[in-house]
Amino acid sequence: MSGIIGIYSPNRTDTSQIAYYGLYALQHRGQASTGIAVNNNGFVDYHKEQGLVNEVFSKDIIDRLMGNIAIGHVRYASSQQSKEKSNVEPLVVGYRKGALALSLDGSIVNAKALRDELEDKGVIFQSTLDAEVIANLIARYHRDGLEEAIIEAIDAIKGSYSIVMMNANSLIAARDPHALRPMVLGRINNGYIIASETCAFDTIGAEFIRDINAGEMIVIDENGVSTVHEKKGKVSHCLFEFIYFARPDSQVDYRSIYTARIEIGRQLARESPVDGDIVIGAPDSGVVSAVGYAEQSKIPYRDGLIKNRYVGRTFIEPTQGLREQGVKIKLNVLKDNVNGKKVVLVDDSIVRGTTVKRIIDLLRNAGAKEVHVRVSSPPVRHSCYLGVDMPTNQHLMAAGKTVEEIRKELGADSLYYISLDGLRKAIGGDEGFCVGCFTGQYPVQGEMNL
Amino acid sequence: MSGIIGIYSPNRTDTSQIAYYGLYALQHRGQASTGIAVNNNGFVDYHKEQGLVNEVFSKDIIDRLMGNIAIGHVRYASSQQSKEKSNVEPLVVGYRKGALALSLDGSIVNAKALRDELEDKGVIFQSTLDAEVIANLIARYHRDGLEEAIIEAIDAIKGSYSIVMMNANSLIAARDPHALRPMVLGRINNGYIIASETCAFDTIGAEFIRDINAGEMIVIDENGVSTVHEKKGKVSHCLFEFIYFARPDSQVDYRSIYTARIEIGRQLARESPVDGDIVIGAPDSGVVSAVGYAEQSKIPYRDGLIKNRYVGRTFIEPTQGLREQGVKIKLNVLKDNVNGKKVVLVDDSIVRGTTVKRIIDLLRNAGAKEVHVRVSSPPVRHSCYLGVDMPTNQHLMAAGKTVEEIRKELGADSLYYISLDGLRKAIGGDEGFCVGCFTGQYPVQGEMNL
Amino acid sequence: MSGIIGIYSPNRTDTSQIAYYGLYALQHRGQASTGIAVNNNGFVDYHKEQGLVNEVFSKDIIDRLMGNIAIGHVRYASSQQSKEKSNVEPLVVGYRKGALALSLDGSIVNAKALRDELEDKGVIFQSTLDAEVIANLIARYHRDGLEEAIIEAIDAIKGSYSIVMMNANSLIAARDPHALRPMVLGRINNGYIIASETCAFDTIGAEFIRDINAGEMIVIDENGVSTVHEKKGKVSHCLFEFIYFARPDSQVDYRSIYTARIEIGRQLARESPVDGDIVIGAPDSGVVSAVGYAEQSKIPYRDGLIKNRYVGRTFIEPTQGLREQGVKIKLNVLKDNVNGKKVVLVDDSIVRGTTVKRIIDLLRNAGAKEVHVRVSSPPVRHSCYLGVDMPTNQHLMAAGKTVEEIRKELGADSLYYISLDGLRKAIGGDEGFCVGCFTGQYPVQGEMNL
Amino acid sequence: MSGIIGIYSPNRTDTSQIAYYGLYALQHRGQASTGIAVNNNGFVDYHKEQGLVNEVFSKDIIDRLMGNIAIGHVRYASSQQSKEKSNVEPLVVGYRKGALALSLDGSIVNAKALRDELEDKGVIFQSTLDAEVIANLIARYHRDGLEEAIIEAIDAIKGSYSIVMMNANSLIAARDPHALRPMVLGRINNGYIIASETCAFDTIGAEFIRDINAGEMIVIDENGVSTVHEKKGKVSHCLFEFIYFARPDSQVDYRSIYTARIEIGRQLARESPVDGDIVIGAPDSGVVSAVGYAEQSKIPYRDGLIKNRYVGRTFIEPTQGLREQGVKIKLNVLKDNVNGKKVVLVDDSIVRGTTVKRIIDLLRNAGAKEVHVRVSSPPVRHSCYLGVDMPTNQHLMAAGKTVEEIRKELGADSLYYISLDGLRKAIGGDEGFCVGCFTGQYPVQGEMNL
Repeated sequence: MSGIIGIYSPNRTDTSQIAYYGLYALQHRGQASTGIAVNNNGFVDYHKEQGLVNEVFSKDIIDRLMGNIAIGHVRYASSQQSKEKSNVEPLVVGYRKGALALSLDGSIVNAKALRDELEDKGVIFQSTLDAEVIANLIARYHRDGLEEAIIEAIDAIKGSYSIVMMNANSLIAARDPHALRPMVLGRINNGYIIASETCAFDTIGAEFIRDINAGEMIVIDENGVSTVHEKKGKVSHCLFEFIYFARPDSQVDYRSIYTARIEIGRQLARESPVDGDIVIGAPDSGVVSAVGYAEQSKIPYRDGLIKNRYVGRTFIEPTQGLREQGVKIKLNVLKDNVNGKKVVLVDDSIVRGTTVKRIIDLLRNAGAKEVHVRVSSPPVRHSCYLGVDMPTNQHLMAAGKTVEEIRKELGADSLYYISLDGLRKAIGGDEGFCVGCFTGQYPVQGEMNL
Repeated sequence: MSGIIGIYSPNRTDTSQIAYYGLYALQHRGQASTGIAVNNNGFVDYHKEQGLVNEVFSKDIIDRLMGNIAIGHVRYASSQQSKEKSNVEPLVVGYRKGALALSLDGSIVNAKALRDELEDKGVIFQSTLDAEVIANLIARYHRDGLEEAIIEAIDAIKGSYSIVMMNANSLIAARDPHALRPMVLGRINNGYIIASETCAFDTIGAEFIRDINAGEMIVIDENGVSTVHEKKGKVSHCLFEFIYFARPDSQVDYRSIYTARIEIGRQLARESPVDGDIVIGAPDSGVVSAVGYAEQSKIPYRDGLIKNRYVGRTFIEPTQGLREQGVKIKLNVLKDNVNGKKVVLVDDSIVRGTTVKRIIDLLRNAGAKEVHVRVSSPPVRHSCYLGVDMPTNQHLMAAGKTVEEIRKELGADSLYYISLDGLRKAIGGDEGFCVGCFTGQYPVQGEMNL
Repeated sequence: MSGIIGIYSPNRTDTSQIAYYGLYALQHRGQASTGIAVNNNGFVDYHKEQGLVNEVFSKDIIDRLMGNIAIGHVRYASSQQSKEKSNVEPLVVGYRKGALALSLDGSIVNAKALRDELEDKGVIFQSTLDAEVIANLIARYHRDGLEEAIIEAIDAIKGSYSIVMMNANSLIAARDPHALRPMVLGRINNGYIIASETCAFDTIGAEFIRDINAGEMIVIDENGVSTVHEKKGKVSHCLFEFIYFARPDSQVDYRSIYTARIEIGRQLARESPVDGDIVIGAPDSGVVSAVGYAEQSKIPYRDGLIKNRYVGRTFIEPTQGLREQGVKIKLNVLKDNVNGKKVVLVDDSIVRGTTVKRIIDLLRNAGAKEVHVRVSSPPVRHSCYLGVDMPTNQHLMAAGKTVEEIRKELGADSLYYISLDGLRKAIGGDEGFCVGCFTGQYPVQGEMNL
Repeated sequence: MSGIIGIYSPNRTDTSQIAYYGLYALQHRGQASTGIAVNNNGFVDYHKEQGLVNEVFSKDIIDRLMGNIAIGHVRYASSQQSKEKSNVEPLVVGYRKGALALSLDGSIVNAKALRDELEDKGVIFQSTLDAEVIANLIARYHRDGLEEAIIEAIDAIKGSYSIVMMNANSLIAARDPHALRPMVLGRINNGYIIASETCAFDTIGAEFIRDINAGEMIVIDENGVSTVHEKKGKVSHCLFEFIYFARPDSQVDYRSIYTARIEIGRQLARESPVDGDIVIGAPDSGVVSAVGYAEQSKIPYRDGLIKNRYVGRTFIEPTQGLREQGVKIKLNVLKDNVNGKKVVLVDDSIVRGTTVKRIIDLLRNAGAKEVHVRVSSPPVRHSCYLGVDMPTNQHLMAAGKTVEEIRKELGADSLYYISLDGLRKAIGGDEGFCVGCFTGQYPVQGEMNL
C-alpha cells in the first residue's frame, strides 16, 4: 500500500511544498520511504529516501525542488518487498521524449510476466518496482506520443493501480478498471491536485472535485482536465480502505470513512449483541467502530488500552529477558476500566491474530472478567495479491478454521465477525466491493507477485 | 514540568534499560531533552542530550551505561528557560564524597536568592538549573554525611519538587511538603523504582507500592527503603496533573486519571447541560472528559477533529502564504460529524486561548451550527510559579475578564468552566489541591523564577 | 576520473572489506561518491552514497555486504556532470541472466549517440552514467552469453575506459584499446584483484601480477584468469596519470610514478636552469618534481607553502569581507624560506592558472625577490574529452597564448614548460602516450560528452 | 596539549568567524574536541563538542555566535583523560560578576590538591578540567575584582599554562612563569588576537606583535593591551614544540619552526654521519629534518613512505586476520626508493618506539639493505607531567636502556640520538628550554596529574 499525490499549478513554483504537506497527510498510508519529484520548465529534479516525510525533507531540499508540476509518494514497508534503497518512488526516468516521473499505489498482477518479456528484449531493471515495468512499457511506445504510449502501457497491465505521472507539460492520472485503490481529484488555486484520499485536500486547502473513475485516465495540462481513456471493468473497491487503511476524516469513493466505521460498529451490535459492562476498541483503528457499538448497545464506551505515541522508528527493542519481566513498550491497559468487567473488544480485522491475542491476554491480566471480541470484517481467509500487504495463506489465522476454533485459540469468551452483507450495508452499497480476501473470488485473476 | 525516574537494583547491571523504557512511558511529561545516569560500583557514567528518548539513546549507549543504580529525566521545553545544552538533566557532579546525580521535577521558588547567596561565597554555575543550586547546597554540608546534607539542602529550598538522587550506594527521593508534583514508589524484581507516574511501572513490569508522601525523603540502599526525613506541609496536589499532564493510564495520588477525567466530563454535563447534537473533545486531553459528558448527557460522542500523528520535531512550518491558502498541518475537522450540528466541545483548559479559538473557527468553517464550549478547569487567571509552564498573567486569556467576555472573544455560542467544587468532587477529594492558578492563593509564597 | 576495484576470492566472504581498504587507497582518484557491490551466491547487494570512503561505509554496512566477488568505485566530482545521487557507481542492474554490476573509470566518447539509439528503441535511463549505456548494450546481447554480450558492447563503445564487472560467477575487466586509463591485476590469497593502481595492492597485501593490456578483456572465474578478447589499438597512456593523478607510490604501466616525477624535475632543471636560492613545489603534486629539480640544479629544496590537512568537505567558506582581510584557509607561505629569496617554483601543470597565480602572489607578499615557474607538463591548450575533468578550451590559460603572454599574466619572473620530448624521456618511453591536451591530436575522435 | 585562541575586536560582531579560521589553523594541536564562546554585550553564548573544527561548527552555529570578544579551543585526546563530553573547552561559567569563559593549554601540577581543598569547602565539579579548578579559584576571590581575582588564582596554580579568558568587557591572557607552552599576541583590524602559534595569525590575516612573556598576564579592553601582572620564573620552553608539536610555518618564541627542524637535521648529519644511499623522513614530522640531513650530508633526499591523507576519525579498523594478510591502511613504502638501498631514516623522537619499529620493518620488507635511524631529540626517558601526553615511564622505550639496547630492539643497523647541546644549538639558544623528559630535571616540581 502507498499514498500518492500530484499537483499541477502553472502559476506557482512551490508545488513541492504542497506535495510535502499532502504527503504528510497521507503518511498513514506508508512510513517506509517517501519522495517528491518536480518539473521546472522541463528539468525534473527529485529527492527520495527511506524515512518519514518530516525526516526525509528539510527546508533546504523543499526550497531546491522548484516547479509547477510535482508528484509524490509514501511507501508502506511491505513484508514481501526488499527494503532496498532503489525501491523508493517516484521513479524518475529519461526516455526518448524527455523526463518522466511515476508514483504508483497498487500491485500489478502480471508484472513478472511483463518483466520477463521485457528482459527477453534486452531491458535492464534497477529496482523491483512495478512502476519500472510501467515506465519501460511507456518508453517502448514512445513513437505514438505520450498519451497513446501510456494507454498502451495501461492496456498491458493487470491488477490494482492508482498512478500519477508527470512530464514536462502535464500531470497524468490513471486508475484501474476495478477502482481497487482510491484516487481523488481536487482544485487548488488555479491548478489541480490528485491524491489517494481527500484528507490531503483538507490539509492543503484544496477543494474536492470528484473521484477518478474506475478505468479512467486523465491528463491535466494547459487545456485543463481531460479524460483521455476509459478501460471498462466491474467496480470493486477494496473494503480494507473503509475498515482499516484510509484516514477517518477522508471521503473514499464518496463515502465518509468515519461514518462507515461508526455504522460497522452499530451493525456489529445488531448482529451480535452481548451483555457487557464496557466497550473498548483495539487501538487505533478499532476505536471508532467501538464507539458505534457502544452507542447501539447502550453499553458505555471506555478506552481499554493506551498506546504510547512516542515510539519512533529507531526504538530499542527490549531483550527477551526484559520482555519476560513484563516490559511492554507500546500498549498499556487501563486497569481501572477493565478490572472485574465484562469487556466487549472491537477490532478492525484479524489477520495473523497475534495482536488481538496479545490484547486479550493483557485484558485478562488486568482483571477483565470476560472478553468478547467483535470484528469489523469477515474472516480473512485468502491472502491479497492486489496491493494489501498480507502474509501467505498459511499464516492467516482464519484460513481453514471455524470461528469457534479461532475463538478458542484466541482465548476469547465469544468471537463474532461481521457478516459480509452487514459490512456492505454499513458502508452503504450492496455491490461494488472486492471481497477476495474473504471469499477467494478476486476481480482480477493472478498469482502472488513475489 | 519534567518526568523523573530512579532504579535501585543490586543484582542487575541493566538498570539503564529499565530507565530507558520508563522514560519512554513518561515522554509526555517532556520532549525537549532527556538523560540517564548510572552508578557502576562508584563510577557514575551518563548520557544526556536534547531530543526524544528514542532519538537520544542508541543501543550502544544504553549498553555502555551499566550500573545497579540509575536515574533519568525528561524535560519539557519551557518558554521561560533557555534551551541551552547545559540545561539537560540528570545533573552529575563530583563533590567531596564522590559522585552525585540529580533529577528534578518542579520549581524552586527561592532559587535565585539561594544562587545569589552561593555566588557571594564564590560558587560558579554552569547552567540555570535549579538542580545545580540544590547540588551546591548538598556539597556545602558534606561534612554532615549525605543524608544530613540533603536534609539541610531541602530545608533551604522552597517550592514544588520531586527529586531523585543517586550516589555510589543509594537512591534517594524527596518530595516537597505540599506534594505538588507527583512521585511514586514501586518494586521491581529484588529492587525498587521511583517514578513520576505509575504508567512507567506498568511499562516496565514493576509493582506499585505507594506514593512518596508530602515532605517525605526516602533512602533506598542495601537496607531497603527508609524514610529519613519528613517536612510537614499542607497537601496541595497540582490539579493540572489530573486535568492535563498525567497519562490517562496513570494513578496519581491514589486516583485514576482516566476515571477522574470521565467524572469531570459528567460533572460538566450536570453543571452545564446543553441541547447539542454531538459531543466532541479537543485533542488529545479533552477527549476523555468529552466521553464522560456524552455519557451523562446522552448526547452521542463523536470525533470532531483528527490530529496528524506524524508531526515530528523537525517539521517544516508552512509559509504565511500557504497558511492563508488554508494549509493546516496538525488538525483536520471531520466535516461529516459537525456539518449542520450543534456541537458541544469539551476542552481541558483555556490558557492563552489560541488553540480553542482556532478549533472553534475550524468547526464553524466546517458547518457547525452552534459551538458550546465546556472546560474541564476553572478560569486560569494567575500564572503558575510552581512548575507549570504558563505565560505571564497578561497573556492568560481569562485574566481580568468575565466568562461572557471570553465567550465573545472566542466566538462560542456558550462557554462554561467547571466549578472549583465540582472539579474537586470529580477528582474525589474536597481538599488537598493547589488552586493557585485559579484563585491566586498558592501554598508557597514566591515570585516568578525567571 | 574515478578509481575502480574488483575482487574475486572463492574461499572468503569478506571481499567487501578488501574492497573497502582498496578504495581507501584509491581515494585520491575521487572524493565525491563511492560504492561497493558484492555477490553472495548469486544475490547482489550493494551500498553507495555521496561522500568519502570512511564516511559512506560503517562497520555494520561492510559486515552486511558479504560475498566472494566484490567491485567498488570512487568518483571525482566532475564539473561537467550532475552531482545527482543517481550517478553513484557501481551500477547494479538486473537483466535476463540475473544481476550485473559495473564500475567504470573513463569516458565514452560516443555515449550520447548510443544513448539516443537506445532511447529510440524504447530504453529508459535512470542516470547520466556512461556505465548505464554499457549495461544496456550488454543486456541487448544477452542471448549470446555474458562474455559475448560484453564483447559486443565493448565493440560498440569508443573512448577511454577501464571497467570492472561482476555477475554471479565471475569478475570481468576490460580496458580500452589505447590503454588510456590504468588498470592492474594482482593476486590475493587464493583469489584475484583488479584495481586502478598498484597502491591499492600494497594497502591490502596483494601481489602485483601485471597490467591489463590495451584492449584486453579478461574473465576471472573458477577456471582462473582468461583473456577472452583483445581489441587492437595504439597504446596512448594518459600522461596526466604520471604528472598528477596517480599516487606517487603506485606503478602505472610498469613505471614508478615517484621516479617519473623526480626525473621530470631533473629534466626541467636540464632544460631550463635558473639562478635561484631555493626550489619549492606547489602542494601537493609539484613537490616531488621540485626535489628532482633541486637535486639536478644543486639549489637547496625547501617547503615554500604549508597546506592545511584538516580542510574537510563541509568547511565554511570565508565571506568576501574576510577574504579581503586576508583570511586564507588552505595554504600558508613559509616566510622564512622565501623572504628575500630567488624562488624556483615547480608546479605539475597549469590548467586555469588560478592556483599558480595565487601562489605567486602569496610568495611575492611574503618577500620573494624573484619567482621562476617551472611546469612539469607542456602547455595545456585543448580540453580533454577522454576522462580528465577540464574546463572548456576558453578557460584554459594556455589556449591561444604564447608562453611569454602567460608569464606576464601570472606575474612570474620566468616561466618554462617542460618539452614534450623531455617529458616522454623522463617517464621512460618515447611513444605510447596520449598528447591530446597538448597538441589537440587525440587517439580517439569524438566530441565533448556533456 | 591543546590549541587556544582569543579575539578582542570592539567594532565587529563576527569574532566567531575569526576564531573558527584560527582554530582550524591550530587543528594540529588537538583533534578530539573544540569549542568557541563569544561575548555579545555581556551575554555569553557558546558551542562546543567532540570532533574536528569543520565537523563541530556549521554556518548556522557560527552565525548565531555573535560577539565582539571570542575565545576558542581545540583539545588533544589525551590517553590520561576521560573522553567525556563534559571535558570540552572553553569552560563557560556564571559567577558573582557575570559570565566568565576560559581556554587552557597546559597542565596544572597541583590541580588535584587545589580540587581537594575546594571540595573540602563544599565546591562541586562537573568535569575533570584543570580550567574548572581555575574558574573556581577566580570566583572565590571575586570581591577583589576580576583582575585581582585572576592574579590570586594564578598565584595558586603551578605547572604549565597558556590561558585565555573572557568576560563582558575584556580578553585576558596569562602564561606560566616558565613559558612552557607557547602564546602569541597579534593585531587584527582595530582589535587584538591571542593564539598558541603564529600560523593562526597568517591564516586570518592578523599581524604578529610579540610573544606573551613568561609569567605575564595581560588584559585587553577598551584601553588597549596592558600587562597587569608578572610572575617571575626561569624560562623553560618545551622543546617538543620545536621538534614535533608546532606547525612548521609557525614562529614559536621568536624562532622559525621550519628552520629549526632543518638545522636539527644538519646537526644530526654533523654529529652522526653515515654512508647512505638516500635519506628519508618518518611522516610527517621527521621529513623536514630529513631534508636538512640530506643537504648537509649530500645524500639525496627521497620520500620513503606515503601516508594516506584520507584516514578519517571514523575509519573501520582492519580485523586481526586482515592485518596478518598485510592490510595496512596508513603508510605505504615507496619500494623503488628503498629497495637495495642503504637508508638513513630521520624520526623526530622515539617515545613508545612502536611506530619507528613498524617503519623499519616496512623498509626491510621493501628490500632496504641497511636502515640507519637518526633521531631529532635525545632519548626520552622520563614521562612529562607538564602538558605533553606521554605514557608512564615503563612504557617509554628509552627508559633504563642503552642506545645499543634500543637499536637491537628496533632492528636498526645504526641508531643515533641528537645531543642535547646539539639540539639547543640547532634551535638557536643554549638555555631557556625544559629538558625534563630527557634528564628528569623539570622546572616545576610535581607529580603526575592523573
